[in-house]
Amino acid sequence: MQLNRHPERRREDRADLYALLDEVPWGTLATVADGQPWVVPMLFARDGDRLLLHGSTGAGALRHVTSGAPVVFSVTAVDGIVVASTTFDSSANYRSAVIHGVPEEIAGEEKRHALEVLADAIIPGRSAEVRASTKRELAATAATALPIEEGRWLMKARSGGAAQPAEEHEQWTGVVGVRTTYGPAVPSSDSVDRELPASVRRLVDRS
Amino acid sequence: MQLNRHPERRREDRADLYALLDEVPWGTLATVADGQPWVVPMLFARDGDRLLLHGSTGAGALRHVTSGAPVVFSVTAVDGIVVASTTFDSSANYRSAVIHGVPEEIAGEEKRHALEVLADAIIPGRSAEVRASTKRELAATAATALPIEEGRWLMKARSGGAAQPAEEHEQWTGVVGVRTTYGPAVPSSDSVDRELPASVRRLVDRS
Repeated sequence: MQLNRHPERRREDRADLYALLDEVPWGTLATVADGQPWVVPMLFARDGDRLLLHGSTGAGALRHVTSGAPVVFSVTAVDGIVVASTTFDSSANYRSAVIHGVPEEIAGEEKRHALEVLADAIIPGRSAEVRASTKRELAATAATALPIEEGRWLMKARSGGAAQPAEEHEQWTGVVGVRTTYGPAVPSSDSVDRELPASVRRLVDRS
Repeated sequence: MQLNRHPERRREDRADLYALLDEVPWGTLATVADGQPWVVPMLFARDGDRLLLHGSTGAGALRHVTSGAPVVFSVTAVDGIVVASTTFDSSANYRSAVIHGVPEEIAGEEKRHALEVLADAIIPGRSAEVRASTKRELAATAATALPIEEGRWLMKARSGGAAQPAEEHEQWTGVVGVRTTYGPAVPSSDSVDRELPASVRRLVDRS
Protein backbone atom coordinates (compact mmCIF):
# COMPACT_ATOMS: atom_id res chain seq x y z
CA MET A 1 0.00 0.00 0.00
CA GLN A 2 2.82 2.30 -0.94
CA LEU A 3 3.09 4.74 -3.77
CA ASN A 4 4.76 2.47 -6.26
CA ARG A 5 4.07 0.71 -9.48
CA HIS A 6 3.75 -2.98 -8.50
CA PRO A 7 2.30 -4.14 -11.81
CA GLU A 8 1.69 -7.60 -10.30
CA ARG A 9 -0.95 -6.04 -8.07
CA ARG A 10 -3.06 -4.94 -11.02
CA ARG A 11 -6.50 -6.59 -11.29
CA GLU A 12 -8.03 -6.54 -14.76
CA ASP A 13 -11.23 -8.49 -14.13
CA ARG A 14 -14.45 -6.55 -13.59
CA ALA A 15 -15.68 -9.37 -11.32
CA ASP A 16 -12.91 -8.48 -8.83
CA LEU A 17 -13.73 -4.78 -9.12
CA TYR A 18 -17.46 -5.34 -8.62
CA ALA A 19 -16.89 -7.62 -5.63
CA LEU A 20 -15.00 -4.78 -3.91
CA LEU A 21 -17.58 -2.14 -4.86
CA ASP A 22 -20.40 -4.35 -3.55
CA GLU A 23 -18.59 -5.10 -0.29
CA VAL A 24 -17.56 -1.57 0.71
CA PRO A 25 -20.38 0.99 0.26
CA TRP A 26 -18.27 4.08 0.98
CA GLY A 27 -15.38 5.83 -0.72
CA THR A 28 -14.07 9.25 -1.63
CA LEU A 29 -15.08 11.49 -4.49
CA ALA A 30 -12.26 13.68 -5.78
CA THR A 31 -12.38 16.41 -8.34
CA VAL A 32 -10.59 19.64 -9.26
CA ALA A 33 -12.09 22.92 -8.10
CA ASP A 34 -10.42 26.18 -9.13
CA GLY A 35 -7.30 24.19 -10.00
CA GLN A 36 -7.08 22.67 -6.51
CA PRO A 37 -7.72 19.07 -5.50
CA TRP A 38 -11.06 18.63 -3.74
CA VAL A 39 -12.22 15.49 -1.92
CA VAL A 40 -15.33 14.41 -0.03
CA PRO A 41 -16.07 11.00 1.51
CA MET A 42 -19.45 9.53 0.68
CA LEU A 43 -21.64 6.49 0.53
CA PHE A 44 -22.25 5.03 -2.90
CA ALA A 45 -23.82 2.05 -4.63
CA ARG A 46 -22.93 0.04 -7.71
CA ASP A 47 -25.85 -0.27 -10.13
CA GLY A 48 -24.73 -2.50 -12.98
CA ASP A 49 -21.86 -0.79 -14.80
CA ARG A 50 -22.10 2.51 -12.95
CA LEU A 51 -21.74 4.03 -9.50
CA LEU A 52 -24.60 5.95 -7.93
CA LEU A 53 -23.93 8.96 -5.71
CA HIS A 54 -26.41 11.16 -3.94
CA GLY A 55 -26.64 14.29 -1.87
CA SER A 56 -28.84 17.20 -0.95
CA THR A 57 -29.96 19.43 -3.82
CA GLY A 58 -28.83 22.38 -1.74
CA ALA A 59 -25.19 21.27 -1.64
CA GLY A 60 -22.65 23.10 -3.73
CA ALA A 61 -20.49 20.00 -3.87
CA LEU A 62 -22.93 17.87 -5.83
CA ARG A 63 -23.75 20.79 -8.14
CA HIS A 64 -20.05 20.96 -8.93
CA VAL A 65 -19.75 17.29 -9.84
CA THR A 66 -22.91 17.39 -11.92
CA SER A 67 -21.61 20.27 -13.99
CA GLY A 68 -19.48 18.09 -16.25
CA ALA A 69 -16.30 18.19 -14.18
CA PRO A 70 -14.14 15.05 -14.33
CA VAL A 71 -14.03 13.12 -11.05
CA VAL A 72 -12.31 10.12 -9.51
CA PHE A 73 -14.16 7.86 -7.12
CA SER A 74 -11.91 5.76 -4.89
CA VAL A 75 -12.82 2.71 -2.80
CA THR A 76 -10.42 0.82 -0.53
CA ALA A 77 -10.63 -2.26 1.66
CA VAL A 78 -7.71 -2.98 3.98
CA ASP A 79 -7.66 -6.76 4.40
CA GLY A 80 -4.58 -7.35 6.51
CA ILE A 81 -1.43 -6.04 8.12
CA VAL A 82 1.68 -7.82 6.84
CA VAL A 83 4.13 -8.34 9.69
CA ALA A 84 7.70 -8.73 8.40
CA SER A 85 11.05 -9.04 10.15
CA THR A 86 11.94 -5.48 9.14
CA THR A 87 10.12 -2.17 8.87
CA PHE A 88 11.08 -2.07 5.20
CA ASP A 89 9.31 -5.33 4.32
CA SER A 90 6.19 -4.57 6.38
CA SER A 91 3.12 -3.90 4.29
CA ALA A 92 -0.65 -4.08 4.13
CA ASN A 93 -2.93 -6.38 2.18
CA TYR A 94 -5.62 -4.39 0.47
CA ARG A 95 -7.94 -4.02 -2.50
CA SER A 96 -8.37 -0.59 -4.03
CA ALA A 97 -10.26 0.82 -6.98
CA VAL A 98 -10.19 4.21 -8.65
CA ILE A 99 -12.83 5.04 -11.24
CA HIS A 100 -12.41 8.05 -13.50
CA GLY A 101 -15.27 9.69 -15.34
CA VAL A 102 -17.82 12.43 -15.64
CA PRO A 103 -20.97 11.95 -13.54
CA GLU A 104 -24.37 12.28 -15.19
CA GLU A 105 -27.35 13.69 -13.34
CA ILE A 106 -30.21 11.30 -12.57
CA ALA A 107 -33.75 12.71 -12.77
CA GLY A 108 -37.40 11.69 -12.49
CA GLU A 109 -38.41 8.12 -11.79
CA GLU A 110 -34.83 6.96 -12.32
CA LYS A 111 -33.97 8.89 -9.17
CA ARG A 112 -36.41 6.78 -7.18
CA HIS A 113 -34.67 3.62 -8.39
CA ALA A 114 -31.27 5.13 -7.57
CA LEU A 115 -32.27 5.89 -3.97
CA GLU A 116 -33.52 2.33 -3.52
CA VAL A 117 -30.26 0.89 -4.87
CA LEU A 118 -28.32 3.19 -2.53
CA ALA A 119 -30.39 2.09 0.49
CA ASP A 120 -29.83 -1.57 -0.43
CA ALA A 121 -26.08 -1.06 -0.89
CA ILE A 122 -25.81 -0.02 2.75
CA ILE A 123 -28.34 -2.54 4.14
CA PRO A 124 -29.19 -5.21 1.56
CA GLY A 125 -32.95 -5.67 1.27
CA ARG A 126 -33.80 -2.51 3.17
CA SER A 127 -35.68 -0.64 0.42
CA ALA A 128 -38.43 -3.31 0.34
CA GLU A 129 -39.12 -2.78 4.07
CA VAL A 130 -39.87 0.95 3.96
CA ARG A 131 -42.41 3.05 2.07
CA ALA A 132 -41.55 4.55 -1.30
CA SER A 133 -39.88 7.95 -1.36
CA THR A 134 -42.30 10.86 -1.63
CA LYS A 135 -42.16 13.49 -4.36
CA ARG A 136 -40.95 15.99 -1.78
CA GLU A 137 -38.11 13.66 -0.75
CA LEU A 138 -37.13 13.02 -4.35
CA ALA A 139 -37.12 16.75 -5.05
CA ALA A 140 -34.80 17.36 -2.08
CA THR A 141 -32.28 14.75 -3.25
CA ALA A 142 -29.76 15.05 -6.05
CA ALA A 143 -28.42 11.86 -7.59
CA THR A 144 -25.68 11.27 -10.13
CA ALA A 145 -24.29 8.25 -11.94
CA LEU A 146 -20.62 7.66 -12.71
CA PRO A 147 -20.21 5.13 -15.53
CA ILE A 148 -17.52 2.46 -15.07
CA GLU A 149 -15.98 2.71 -18.52
CA GLU A 150 -13.37 0.51 -20.13
CA GLY A 151 -9.89 1.89 -19.55
CA ARG A 152 -11.15 4.42 -16.98
CA TRP A 153 -10.79 2.26 -13.87
CA LEU A 154 -7.83 0.79 -12.03
CA MET A 155 -7.93 -1.92 -9.44
CA LYS A 156 -4.99 -3.04 -7.34
CA ALA A 157 -4.76 -5.75 -4.73
CA ARG A 158 -2.09 -7.16 -2.48
CA SER A 159 -2.53 -10.44 -0.62
CA GLY A 160 -0.30 -12.99 1.07
CA GLY A 161 2.60 -12.70 3.47
CA ALA A 162 5.79 -10.69 3.62
CA ALA A 163 8.47 -10.92 0.96
CA GLN A 164 11.24 -13.38 1.82
CA PRO A 165 14.01 -11.33 3.42
CA ALA A 166 17.56 -11.68 2.18
CA GLU A 167 18.83 -12.15 5.73
CA GLU A 168 18.33 -14.84 8.36
CA HIS A 169 16.10 -13.98 11.30
CA GLU A 170 14.14 -15.63 14.11
CA GLN A 171 11.22 -13.19 14.11
CA TRP A 172 7.55 -14.13 13.93
CA THR A 173 6.19 -13.09 10.55
CA GLY A 174 2.67 -13.37 9.23
CA VAL A 175 -0.51 -11.50 8.50
CA VAL A 176 -3.00 -9.92 10.90
CA GLY A 177 -6.47 -9.93 9.34
CA VAL A 178 -8.40 -6.65 9.17
CA ARG A 179 -12.18 -6.68 8.83
CA THR A 180 -15.15 -4.32 8.94
CA THR A 181 -17.79 -5.70 11.28
CA TYR A 182 -21.41 -4.65 11.80
CA GLY A 183 -23.16 -4.62 15.16
CA PRO A 184 -24.59 -4.40 17.67
CA ALA A 185 -27.93 -2.99 16.52
CA VAL A 186 -28.83 -0.37 19.14
CA PRO A 187 -32.53 0.61 19.12
CA SER A 188 -33.73 4.18 19.52
CA SER A 189 -35.81 4.78 22.66
CA ASP A 190 -39.14 4.14 20.90
CA SER A 191 -37.90 0.92 19.29
CA VAL A 192 -36.76 -1.11 22.29
CA ASP A 193 -39.81 -3.40 22.05
CA ARG A 194 -40.03 -3.44 18.27
CA GLU A 195 -38.78 -6.30 16.14
CA LEU A 196 -35.48 -5.84 14.32
CA PRO A 197 -36.04 -5.65 10.54
CA ALA A 198 -34.89 -8.75 8.65
CA SER A 199 -32.41 -6.68 6.61
CA VAL A 200 -30.74 -5.31 9.73
CA ARG A 201 -30.69 -8.77 11.33
CA ARG A 202 -28.88 -10.18 8.27
CA LEU A 203 -26.38 -7.31 8.27
CA VAL A 204 -25.45 -7.93 11.91
CA ASP A 205 -25.43 -11.73 11.52
CA ARG A 206 -23.03 -11.40 8.57
CA SER A 207 -20.25 -10.24 10.92
CA MET B 1 -22.64 11.13 4.82
CA GLN B 2 -24.15 13.01 1.96
CA LEU B 3 -22.79 15.85 -0.06
CA ASN B 4 -24.30 18.67 1.92
CA ARG B 5 -23.36 21.46 4.19
CA HIS B 6 -24.47 20.27 7.64
CA PRO B 7 -22.56 22.92 9.58
CA GLU B 8 -23.52 21.18 12.85
CA ARG B 9 -21.24 18.30 11.84
CA ARG B 10 -18.16 20.48 11.78
CA ARG B 11 -15.47 19.64 14.38
CA GLU B 12 -13.08 22.47 15.19
CA ASP B 13 -10.94 20.82 17.87
CA ARG B 14 -7.57 19.38 16.88
CA ALA B 15 -7.96 16.75 19.60
CA ASP B 16 -10.90 15.26 17.66
CA LEU B 17 -8.93 15.43 14.42
CA TYR B 18 -5.87 13.77 15.93
CA ALA B 19 -7.94 11.03 17.56
CA LEU B 20 -9.26 10.08 14.12
CA LEU B 21 -5.83 10.28 12.46
CA ASP B 22 -4.32 8.09 15.18
CA GLU B 23 -7.11 5.51 14.97
CA VAL B 24 -7.25 4.99 11.20
CA PRO B 25 -3.77 4.64 9.61
CA TRP B 26 -4.94 4.71 5.99
CA GLY B 27 -6.54 7.28 3.73
CA THR B 28 -6.44 8.68 0.23
CA LEU B 29 -4.01 11.17 -1.25
CA ALA B 30 -5.54 13.35 -3.96
CA THR B 31 -3.84 15.85 -6.20
CA VAL B 32 -4.23 17.38 -9.65
CA ALA B 33 -2.18 15.93 -12.51
CA ASP B 34 -2.41 17.55 -15.94
CA GLY B 35 -5.60 19.27 -14.82
CA GLN B 36 -7.26 15.96 -13.89
CA PRO B 37 -8.07 14.65 -10.40
CA TRP B 38 -5.68 11.91 -9.27
CA VAL B 39 -6.10 9.74 -6.19
CA VAL B 40 -4.15 6.95 -4.52
CA PRO B 41 -4.96 5.13 -1.27
CA MET B 42 -2.10 4.82 1.18
CA LEU B 43 -1.00 4.18 4.71
CA PHE B 44 0.04 7.22 6.71
CA ALA B 45 1.06 8.28 10.20
CA ARG B 46 0.49 11.41 12.26
CA ASP B 47 3.73 12.80 13.68
CA GLY B 48 2.85 15.77 15.83
CA ASP B 49 1.30 18.44 13.64
CA ARG B 50 1.99 16.73 10.34
CA LEU B 51 1.15 13.63 8.35
CA LEU B 52 3.90 11.31 7.12
CA LEU B 53 3.57 9.50 3.81
CA HIS B 54 6.02 7.12 2.17
CA GLY B 55 6.59 5.20 -1.01
CA SER B 56 9.23 3.73 -3.26
CA THR B 57 11.73 6.19 -4.71
CA GLY B 58 11.01 4.64 -8.11
CA ALA B 59 7.35 5.64 -8.08
CA GLY B 60 6.18 8.48 -10.28
CA ALA B 61 3.32 9.18 -7.91
CA LEU B 62 5.44 10.23 -4.97
CA ARG B 63 7.73 12.26 -7.19
CA HIS B 64 4.65 14.16 -8.30
CA VAL B 65 3.53 15.00 -4.78
CA THR B 66 7.02 15.98 -3.72
CA SER B 67 7.31 18.47 -6.55
CA GLY B 68 5.35 21.19 -4.80
CA ALA B 69 1.90 20.23 -6.05
CA PRO B 70 -0.98 20.93 -3.65
CA VAL B 71 -2.60 17.79 -2.26
CA VAL B 72 -5.52 16.76 -0.08
CA PHE B 73 -5.21 13.82 2.27
CA SER B 74 -8.54 12.33 3.34
CA VAL B 75 -9.25 9.95 6.24
CA THR B 76 -12.65 8.47 7.06
CA ALA B 77 -14.04 6.22 9.76
CA VAL B 78 -17.56 4.88 9.33
CA ASP B 79 -18.90 4.36 12.85
CA GLY B 80 -22.48 3.28 12.28
CA ILE B 81 -25.40 2.76 9.93
CA VAL B 82 -28.40 4.88 10.91
CA VAL B 83 -31.60 2.90 10.36
CA ALA B 84 -34.60 5.20 9.88
CA SER B 85 -38.22 4.56 8.99
CA THR B 86 -37.64 5.92 5.49
CA THR B 87 -34.89 5.72 2.89
CA PHE B 88 -34.70 9.51 2.98
CA ASP B 89 -33.85 9.69 6.70
CA SER B 90 -31.36 6.82 6.60
CA SER B 91 -27.78 7.88 7.10
CA ALA B 92 -24.36 6.88 8.36
CA ASN B 93 -22.45 7.94 11.44
CA TYR B 94 -18.90 8.81 10.51
CA ARG B 95 -15.85 10.93 11.21
CA SER B 96 -13.95 12.38 8.27
CA ALA B 97 -10.97 14.65 7.83
CA VAL B 98 -9.51 16.38 4.81
CA ILE B 99 -6.13 18.06 5.10
CA HIS B 100 -4.94 20.43 2.40
CA GLY B 101 -1.32 21.37 1.89
CA VAL B 102 1.93 20.96 0.03
CA PRO B 103 4.04 17.96 1.11
CA GLU B 104 7.68 18.49 1.97
CA GLU B 105 10.31 15.86 1.23
CA ILE B 106 11.95 14.16 4.19
CA ALA B 107 15.64 13.30 3.87
CA GLY B 108 18.56 11.89 5.84
CA GLU B 109 18.18 10.79 9.44
CA GLU B 110 14.74 12.37 9.58
CA LYS B 111 13.66 9.69 7.12
CA ARG B 112 14.68 6.97 9.58
CA HIS B 113 12.47 8.57 12.23
CA ALA B 114 9.60 8.88 9.73
CA LEU B 115 9.72 5.18 8.84
CA GLU B 116 9.64 4.23 12.52
CA VAL B 117 6.63 6.47 13.14
CA LEU B 118 4.91 4.93 10.12
CA ALA B 119 5.59 1.39 11.36
CA ASP B 120 4.21 2.29 14.79
CA ALA B 121 1.09 3.90 13.32
CA ILE B 122 0.12 0.56 11.79
CA ILE B 123 1.25 -1.64 14.71
CA PRO B 124 1.94 0.48 17.82
CA GLY B 125 5.30 -0.41 19.34
CA ARG B 126 6.50 -2.40 16.34
CA SER B 127 9.57 -0.29 15.46
CA ALA B 128 11.26 -1.16 18.77
CA GLU B 129 11.00 -4.89 17.98
CA VAL B 130 12.87 -4.88 14.68
CA ARG B 131 16.35 -3.83 13.66
CA ALA B 132 16.99 -0.29 12.41
CA SER B 133 16.53 0.42 8.71
CA THR B 134 19.69 0.01 6.65
CA LYS B 135 21.14 2.73 4.45
CA ARG B 136 20.08 0.74 1.41
CA GLU B 137 16.50 0.56 2.70
CA LEU B 138 16.43 4.28 3.48
CA ALA B 139 17.76 5.07 0.01
CA ALA B 140 15.01 2.98 -1.58
CA THR B 141 12.25 4.78 0.33
CA ALA B 142 10.84 8.23 -0.31
CA ALA B 143 9.08 10.00 2.54
CA THR B 144 7.13 13.24 2.67
CA ALA B 145 5.45 15.29 5.37
CA LEU B 146 2.17 17.15 4.99
CA PRO B 147 1.82 19.86 7.64
CA ILE B 148 -1.58 20.16 9.36
CA GLU B 149 -1.92 23.93 9.12
CA GLU B 150 -4.53 26.16 10.68
CA GLY B 151 -7.41 26.73 8.30
CA ARG B 152 -6.21 24.01 5.93
CA TRP B 153 -8.09 21.09 7.48
CA LEU B 154 -11.76 20.22 7.81
CA MET B 155 -13.24 17.60 10.08
CA LYS B 156 -16.85 16.49 10.05
CA ALA B 157 -18.64 13.97 12.23
CA ARG B 158 -22.14 12.60 12.52
CA SER B 159 -23.27 10.60 15.53
CA GLY B 160 -26.57 9.59 17.11
CA GLY B 161 -29.79 8.19 15.71
CA ALA B 162 -32.10 9.11 12.88
CA ALA B 163 -33.87 12.46 12.65
CA GLN B 164 -37.37 12.39 14.10
CA PRO B 165 -39.71 11.77 11.17
CA ALA B 166 -42.73 14.05 10.62
CA GLU B 167 -45.01 11.04 10.26
CA GLU B 168 -46.12 8.29 12.65
CA HIS B 169 -44.65 4.85 12.10
CA GLU B 170 -44.16 1.53 13.88
CA GLN B 171 -40.76 0.71 12.37
CA TRP B 172 -37.68 -0.29 14.33
CA THR B 173 -35.16 2.53 14.16
CA GLY B 174 -31.68 2.71 15.61
CA VAL B 175 -28.02 2.48 14.81
CA VAL B 176 -25.93 -0.51 13.72
CA GLY B 177 -22.36 -0.09 14.91
CA VAL B 178 -19.54 -0.41 12.36
CA ARG B 179 -16.01 -1.25 13.50
CA THR B 180 -12.63 -2.17 12.09
CA THR B 181 -11.32 -5.27 13.84
CA TYR B 182 -7.87 -6.84 13.79
CA GLY B 183 -7.21 -10.56 13.85
CA PRO B 184 -6.54 -13.39 13.73
CA ALA B 185 -2.74 -13.28 13.46
CA VAL B 186 -1.86 -15.96 10.91
CA PRO B 187 1.80 -17.05 11.03
CA SER B 188 3.88 -17.68 7.92
CA SER B 189 5.05 -21.29 7.54
CA ASP B 190 8.38 -20.67 9.29
CA SER B 191 6.72 -18.85 12.22
CA VAL B 192 4.21 -21.43 13.45
CA ASP B 193 6.34 -22.23 16.51
CA ARG B 194 7.62 -18.69 17.10
CA GLU B 195 6.20 -16.38 19.71
CA LEU B 196 3.86 -13.62 18.57
CA PRO B 197 5.49 -10.19 19.04
CA ALA B 198 4.02 -8.14 21.90
CA SER B 199 2.99 -5.37 19.49
CA VAL B 200 1.00 -7.76 17.32
CA ARG B 201 -0.55 -9.39 20.38
CA ARG B 202 -1.76 -5.97 21.60
CA LEU B 203 -3.18 -5.11 18.18
CA VAL B 204 -5.23 -8.29 18.04
CA ASP B 205 -6.31 -8.06 21.69
CA ARG B 206 -7.58 -4.52 21.06
CA SER B 207 -10.40 -5.85 18.90
